[in-house]
Amino acid sequence: MSLINENSSGVFVISATPFHPDGEIDWESLDRVTDSYFEDGADGLAILGMMGEAPKMTQPEAVEIARRVITRAEGRPVVVGVSAPGLAAIRDLSRAVMDMGAAGAMVAPPSSLKTDPQIHAYYGQVIEALGDDTPVVLQDFPLATSVKISDDVMSRIIRDMPSIKMLKHEDWPGLAKIARIRADEAAGQRRLSILCGNAGLFLPEEVARGADGAMTGFGFPKMMVEVTRLAKAGDMDRAQDVFDAYLPLVRYESQPGLGLAVRKHVLARRGVIASPALRKPGAMLDAASAAEVDRLIDRQEKRLKELG
Amino acid sequence: MSLINENSSGVFVISATPFHPDGEIDWESLDRVTDSYFEDGADGLAILGMMGEAPKMTQPEAVEIARRVITRAEGRPVVVGVSAPGLAAIRDLSRAVMDMGAAGAMVAPPSSLKTDPQIHAYYGQVIEALGDDTPVVLQDFPLATSVKISDDVMSRIIRDMPSIKMLKHEDWPGLAKIARIRADEAAGQRRLSILCGNAGLFLPEEVARGADGAMTGFGFPKMMVEVTRLAKAGDMDRAQDVFDAYLPLVRYESQPGLGLAVRKHVLARRGVIASPALRKPGAMLDAASAAEVDRLIDRQEKRLKELG
Amino acid sequence: MSLINENSSGVFVISATPFHPDGEIDWESLDRVTDSYFEDGADGLAILGMMGEAPKMTQPEAVEIARRVITRAEGRPVVVGVSAPGLAAIRDLSRAVMDMGAAGAMVAPPSSLKTDPQIHAYYGQVIEALGDDTPVVLQDFPLATSVKISDDVMSRIIRDMPSIKMLKHEDWPGLAKIARIRADEAAGQRRLSILCGNAGLFLPEEVARGADGAMTGFGFPKMMVEVTRLAKAGDMDRAQDVFDAYLPLVRYESQPGLGLAVRKHVLARRGVIASPALRKPGAMLDAASAAEVDRLIDRQEKRLKELG
Amino acid sequence: MSLINENSSGVFVISATPFHPDGEIDWESLDRVTDSYFEDGADGLAILGMMGEAPKMTQPEAVEIARRVITRAEGRPVVVGVSAPGLAAIRDLSRAVMDMGAAGAMVAPPSSLKTDPQIHAYYGQVIEALGDDTPVVLQDFPLATSVKISDDVMSRIIRDMPSIKMLKHEDWPGLAKIARIRADEAAGQRRLSILCGNAGLFLPEEVARGADGAMTGFGFPKMMVEVTRLAKAGDMDRAQDVFDAYLPLVRYESQPGLGLAVRKHVLARRGVIASPALRKPGAMLDAASAAEVDRLIDRQEKRLKELG
Repeated sequence: MSLINENSSGVFVISATPFHPDGEIDWESLDRVTDSYFEDGADGLAILGMMGEAPKMTQPEAVEIARRVITRAEGRPVVVGVSAPGLAAIRDLSRAVMDMGAAGAMVAPPSSLKTDPQIHAYYGQVIEALGDDTPVVLQDFPLATSVKISDDVMSRIIRDMPSIKMLKHEDWPGLAKIARIRADEAAGQRRLSILCGNAGLFLPEEVARGADGAMTGFGFPKMMVEVTRLAKAGDMDRAQDVFDAYLPLVRYESQPGLGLAVRKHVLARRGVIASPALRKPGAMLDAASAAEVDRLIDRQEKRLKELG
Repeated sequence: MSLINENSSGVFVISATPFHPDGEIDWESLDRVTDSYFEDGADGLAILGMMGEAPKMTQPEAVEIARRVITRAEGRPVVVGVSAPGLAAIRDLSRAVMDMGAAGAMVAPPSSLKTDPQIHAYYGQVIEALGDDTPVVLQDFPLATSVKISDDVMSRIIRDMPSIKMLKHEDWPGLAKIARIRADEAAGQRRLSILCGNAGLFLPEEVARGADGAMTGFGFPKMMVEVTRLAKAGDMDRAQDVFDAYLPLVRYESQPGLGLAVRKHVLARRGVIASPALRKPGAMLDAASAAEVDRLIDRQEKRLKELG
Repeated sequence: MSLINENSSGVFVISATPFHPDGEIDWESLDRVTDSYFEDGADGLAILGMMGEAPKMTQPEAVEIARRVITRAEGRPVVVGVSAPGLAAIRDLSRAVMDMGAAGAMVAPPSSLKTDPQIHAYYGQVIEALGDDTPVVLQDFPLATSVKISDDVMSRIIRDMPSIKMLKHEDWPGLAKIARIRADEAAGQRRLSILCGNAGLFLPEEVARGADGAMTGFGFPKMMVEVTRLAKAGDMDRAQDVFDAYLPLVRYESQPGLGLAVRKHVLARRGVIASPALRKPGAMLDAASAAEVDRLIDRQEKRLKELG
Repeated sequence: MSLINENSSGVFVISATPFHPDGEIDWESLDRVTDSYFEDGADGLAILGMMGEAPKMTQPEAVEIARRVITRAEGRPVVVGVSAPGLAAIRDLSRAVMDMGAAGAMVAPPSSLKTDPQIHAYYGQVIEALGDDTPVVLQDFPLATSVKISDDVMSRIIRDMPSIKMLKHEDWPGLAKIARIRADEAAGQRRLSILCGNAGLFLPEEVARGADGAMTGFGFPKMMVEVTRLAKAGDMDRAQDVFDAYLPLVRYESQPGLGLAVRKHVLARRGVIASPALRKPGAMLDAASAAEVDRLIDRQEKRLKELG
């Protein structure tokens, strides 16, 4: 078992949940996709996030998926999304998965929060419910939650709640927020791990601004691994070259509501999962979109070959 | 076991969940409040609605509350709110409570629905998930869900989904919507039971426009029972006299986010529940508000005595 | 010319703009309604507010309405709503109406503001644009603007921007916010005039909590005048008696989107304006609603007679 | 004077408004940027759109900008955004600019619209206010307006309102919407010009799906001109090659709220406008972001040279 901490870094892939065409969970593909992420160089995984198909699971299914992935990860860190409408549900799910060996619990703010004091108070209640020995990932995703966390309140949360070890950064635009946190740290604020989401669309800049890596779900996790590694090593030109080769597809996969179908199409095409099926009410990529994605992948492979 | 149908009428009280001051469910008070609602003349109950404390329960607690209330109701109808982010959870909770003897499953539209076709399609999926032998209550509550259901789409839902037997009406303003549905029925559309929410703030007018009664949660359910009975009997003046006597408190209890604390204060003052405690993050009424409520109740009692 | 200040109190009626049935402004009725408000005891008026028909005017019409009302008011205070998408428009309209003799400029926060620092910064920019010799009314109306102003940020705005002399209070629930501001003043914060909106639905409690009166638009302004006077004099029982007599209609008029048609129906019935017409896309009250309103007024008159 | 029609195509650049550092309009730069767009191959311009700095202008400034740009365009089409809170203001501004020689009036739906019938009715009122001889551009931009226009209601609007000649398409994801409109046309629906926004992020796919071009505001309009031309000519590989060279910057400029500062930085760097200043409350790009943009432009130039 390995817990995240304020120095966690690299790429935590947001894992897709594979289904059979009839909507049942495809456990074998789940194992395969878990293995595949690590083979591609992932440092960890994140499951049951709010934007994927987690809300389509029953609670027993969600718990079983967590158990399967954590077991399969064999000690490598798996962050589990535990956002729920109530604190009791957050506490129960968090305890269950931490007992299984999860690396941390990820919590996004509910859209009912309207003011800075409310946001601060909410995370106070979450920490109280989870106990301060559970490492927490704060998911900052205004486009989905409609909760905008100001620099001020972020600072106060970091100061007051030491068990929040990681920021899943998906504010948009959000580069200045990363820079501000790192500047505050230079001025004495405790360190926070920052992994970036937003489909990886700003990964080179994010790492250059001080992010520790990515936590998102692109169909070719190798891109995120390599870009993060190169950018951290200071080889920004090569990082951007690699990034640019994948960017047309990153862009296509970043379409909200459509991205998961794109990702599953890619994973199925790559042979990682058996079927690109989404559980209802989700739908697979239509033929026109699938052709567009295939065309982008073909171009991407050509470009990568040119890059060497 | 008794199922709701398109002719269900009267008052279905939205039941409060009593807690001990430490946040644990107070099962004895739950029995007492259940009994009390029926003693006050309720025709049925509604539990686990979206605006109360249902989201603060864990799923096992929610199921246990449903079992306790349905058992205690001894065959009188209990509608159970089953709204959830995913269809699988809706289906599972609905099956569980229908097996216990619930009278119907209540579903509000998720706030992600943006267009008329999306709203129509969503209820289609819900019905498919529940099976068409489960009577469904459509909860139409734009202030909370931000989903506005137009007359057109309501009509199409009624036409296409016969297992939707009841509308929980909380559109605001919403009197015209009731009139429109009744007019459509006069023109041949199948009948729908309409019970009104919105804290009862428009109950006399709602019944006069054709509603079958109320489904909401005022601290003195007797008011709703009497107003509904009188208005249905055509005695609008007496209905309004009774309503007006309670109106200052109805108004006070209708404050969003505060209403439940008011209601519990009233129920505790009436001796129905042991403690006015809310589960965190909710808070009991502060002293100033409690004094205002007490003053309104004193005036209400005096006014009711004058009315005879 | 009379400017509002931190001690302004009483009732500022939100004035309706009368139209002819063809949509043209009815200037004679505008004079009559202006006179009528003062005859009913109003201490001032507020015009071009965000919830009425101001957005339906062209800018020249808006300016002409302001000129007409301010002139007709003969030195009694007229607050003018100047909310606009841009600071330049706010500044220009504000200067124009202050030059005509307006008593102050009312500004609501734009819905784009998401965080406490953004809200604070916005009012800083507004004050900079208006100059600090223009008395400003801060309109706090989350139901319409979706901007929630926390007690903290309100405190900082009061401290940092001395030209904000008045709060138009329409937070809901909002009684605690009034009490908090008065408590802060007792602890040394500068005074702020607080006039309450929300259709007057909580006027007795608001004044008892420390509000200075009302700024809203009920069809019988006399109610607000009398309730404010009685509650300030400490005669809460009589204040509430008067309030309760009007409450069924206050409640009916408080329906969002419908209230203005109700108010115009009442004003036309009272002979104050010639036509209850709204400018398109607004619509007059339909027959069923008009009958409900008439019935409530008849009952109200009877009840007032009983009260003596 | 040239009006848009259902066959308008190519690139209509959303024009930036240049300011001096003190916030005053820089009229000479405005002329220069107007010329520059046409030199880069634009087929037309669009001004006073809702996402730029139009709301920061006073109404006289807005009218003067329209006059200056339309005059400078010397007969080439200039679409003018006329969205406003009220129909009277929309009508007045529209008449004013059409009299000056504007090519059409662009109207986005106000965020108060919640249902399909409301959206349809709103455009009906707009057309009635504008008169059916004014060519209208329907701006479909849910991310900014929060109004989602379903395929159904789009179809009914096209059918019922022949003076709507163009769709400014910024739904996201939105490729299927383009395909659907073209399929409906193949089945007999009247033709509509479709120009795409969204910062050009999906331009190759949009044109391939049937869009007629772009209406958006990237700092190098040449990209849009060339990609549109190549994609229409069926040379998708070359179109995508050109697009990919600019994509890293397109992506950076597509950040909401930051994009305009990026664009002005680029235009100033290119010597087209004198200052990258935004009118308050906007702010110029900070140094870190400016360096990122400069780096992307350097790489872009290198890549374009490689492409030949």
